[in-house]
Amino acid sequence: MSLKDKRVIVVGATGAVGRECLSILAQRGVPAGNIVALASARSAGITIPYASGGVTVAELNAQAFNPSDVAIFCATSGVARQWVPLAVERGATVVDNSSAFRMRDDVPLVIPEINPVRAGKVIANPNCSTIIMLVALEPLRKAFGVESIVVSTYQAVSGAGQAGIDALQREVAGDAASGPFAEPCAFNVFSHNSAMDPATGLNGEEQKMIDESRKIWNQPDLEVIPTCVRVPVYRAHSESICVRLTQPATESQIRAAYADARGVRVVDDRAANAFPTPLKASGRDDVLVGRIRPAVTGAADQATRTWCLWACGDQLRKGAALNAVQVAEGIA
Amino acid sequence: MSLKDKRVIVVGATGAVGRECLSILAQRGVPAGNIVALASARSAGITIPYASGGVTVAELNAQAFNPSDVAIFCATSGVARQWVPLAVERGATVVDNSSAFRMRDDVPLVIPEINPVRAGKVIANPNCSTIIMLVALEPLRKAFGVESIVVSTYQAVSGAGQAGIDALQREVAGDAASGPFAEPCAFNVFSHNSAMDPATGLNGEEQKMIDESRKIWNQPDLEVIPTCVRVPVYRAHSESICVRLTQPATESQIRAAYADARGVRVVDDRAANAFPTPLKASGRDDVLVGRIRPAVTGAADQATRTWCLWACGDQLRKGAALNAVQVAEGIA
Repeated sequence: MSLKDKRVIVVGATGAVGRECLSILAQRGVPAGNIVALASARSAGITIPYASGGVTVAELNAQAFNPSDVAIFCATSGVARQWVPLAVERGATVVDNSSAFRMRDDVPLVIPEINPVRAGKVIANPNCSTIIMLVALEPLRKAFGVESIVVSTYQAVSGAGQAGIDALQREVAGDAASGPFAEPCAFNVFSHNSAMDPATGLNGEEQKMIDESRKIWNQPDLEVIPTCVRVPVYRAHSESICVRLTQPATESQIRAAYADARGVRVVDDRAANAFPTPLKASGRDDVLVGRIRPAVTGAADQATRTWCLWACGDQLRKGAALNAVQVAEGIA
Repeated sequence: MSLKDKRVIVVGATGAVGRECLSILAQRGVPAGNIVALASARSAGITIPYASGGVTVAELNAQAFNPSDVAIFCATSGVARQWVPLAVERGATVVDNSSAFRMRDDVPLVIPEINPVRAGKVIANPNCSTIIMLVALEPLRKAFGVESIVVSTYQAVSGAGQAGIDALQREVAGDAASGPFAEPCAFNVFSHNSAMDPATGLNGEEQKMIDESRKIWNQPDLEVIPTCVRVPVYRAHSESICVRLTQPATESQIRAAYADARGVRVVDDRAANAFPTPLKASGRDDVLVGRIRPAVTGAADQATRTWCLWACGDQLRKGAALNAVQVAEGIA
């Protein structure tokens, strides 16, 4: 349950998720001597912050992986496809943040608050938007069941890594040099930059939200209707969710379901107009949920099946690095 | 049908919508000599741009209104409640941008592409988010009927007037001085700043989208499920819409419905990942519509009732000033 006595390898240690992962491991008290930070040859030799000191980055290499190591991959799908099998072959246990293995039948796709695992050689970390949505909805699914979700996202540029952050900073400063996005990102919003399937009209991010939600909840007929959009926010994703439950519920029952839920905190002050925002969610472990209301206004506390809510979560923490560390702790 | 021979009074001429209104009247060829620009005492005497010259702002006063004048009110509800009755009493015809009279049974609430009027003493201009949504959906309503709409908005700060624009500019420059919003607006998104009904959990903007859509479409049982959100965009609102039609339609039928629709243009290139954005919609008359797809993927061109789309419209133009000028042209 603790990673303190394990050697923890972070692959992609210099990226936005890799750095967040190191920060969380340091907070968990994993000593620097147990950390192996790996990245591409370009970053090898540099020292990156860890706890009160730093760790030196080495080039990704198969010899780095040894039996009983835990390797957290914070790299691209391409890197994962090439190196995860080598790490496993050398006896390491892998938690992979990329989409490379998520939908494989022999790979668990895990959100510890929902479907924890205690063992496995490769465990996949879900997409950030999927994690935030399912953590926000899990209390309702447990209590009432979920049949259908209409979700529109407001996703931070750091979802595209450091390149996304750099692009927004440059554009705000008036520099229109090209970045990872096809559209300007400063003072603009645009349909998610992942490639679109011309047949379905769904982009990659939307397809992940559909497929991964069904797998994590083990509910192949779950209806998920996503629209994924980037907004000029540096960090933390927001989601406007309209959910149809299996069983009707009253507003007091809905709020009671959140009372002792894990990983989620309600921020919902109608009088003060104070609800979750990405700034409030940034750097926090919990997914924030608010704007909880029946989709169609009826009599006070009438039981109904369709509810709206608004969720914000730090996609670099719970949406990626934190979830991966929690998964690693589950199998350590 | 033309305002060229009318005296046109713009009330609130120095605000964001008032200035846009003057710009549109100039484009329409209304001579500066026919324009009366009115505002509060604070702005009286200043000259604001009009066509290649300027017009001098006078203080709002009842004597300014005369029979056969057209008065376009681009002011607050408070100003409208006080001055619209006086303008009408003196014989002027009023198009009011505020929410003061929108839901009154004796006041038409008009989007010219949908429910044009040819006469009236006071005609109300709908809320900007309502106009953009209904213009985007009108081709579908005409062809197939609309039963239910789930909509999440991405609204520009200029919806809160010049104060919203100033707040975003200041915050981006690092100045956190208070503006019209309770939350930071730079690099953040937040639930719409209009006051919330503590009983329903709906803010004012959402309630307007529900009430006004039902009135404009004359469909009291229309289901509208809105979530209104501000984003750090200077101009043009975006909306993620999931609509349930009365009659099932195929994708070719849906696209055909937009082919000769008025006030709306399809921007929907899946291969290039190019869709409407607020930057593309800014300064344009048309509402841009894209991401048109069935909510649930089925067989190619299968008829189905639930569709998703993404709309962007300039809320200062079609969402306010342009719609008001078009209404005024209808009754001139």
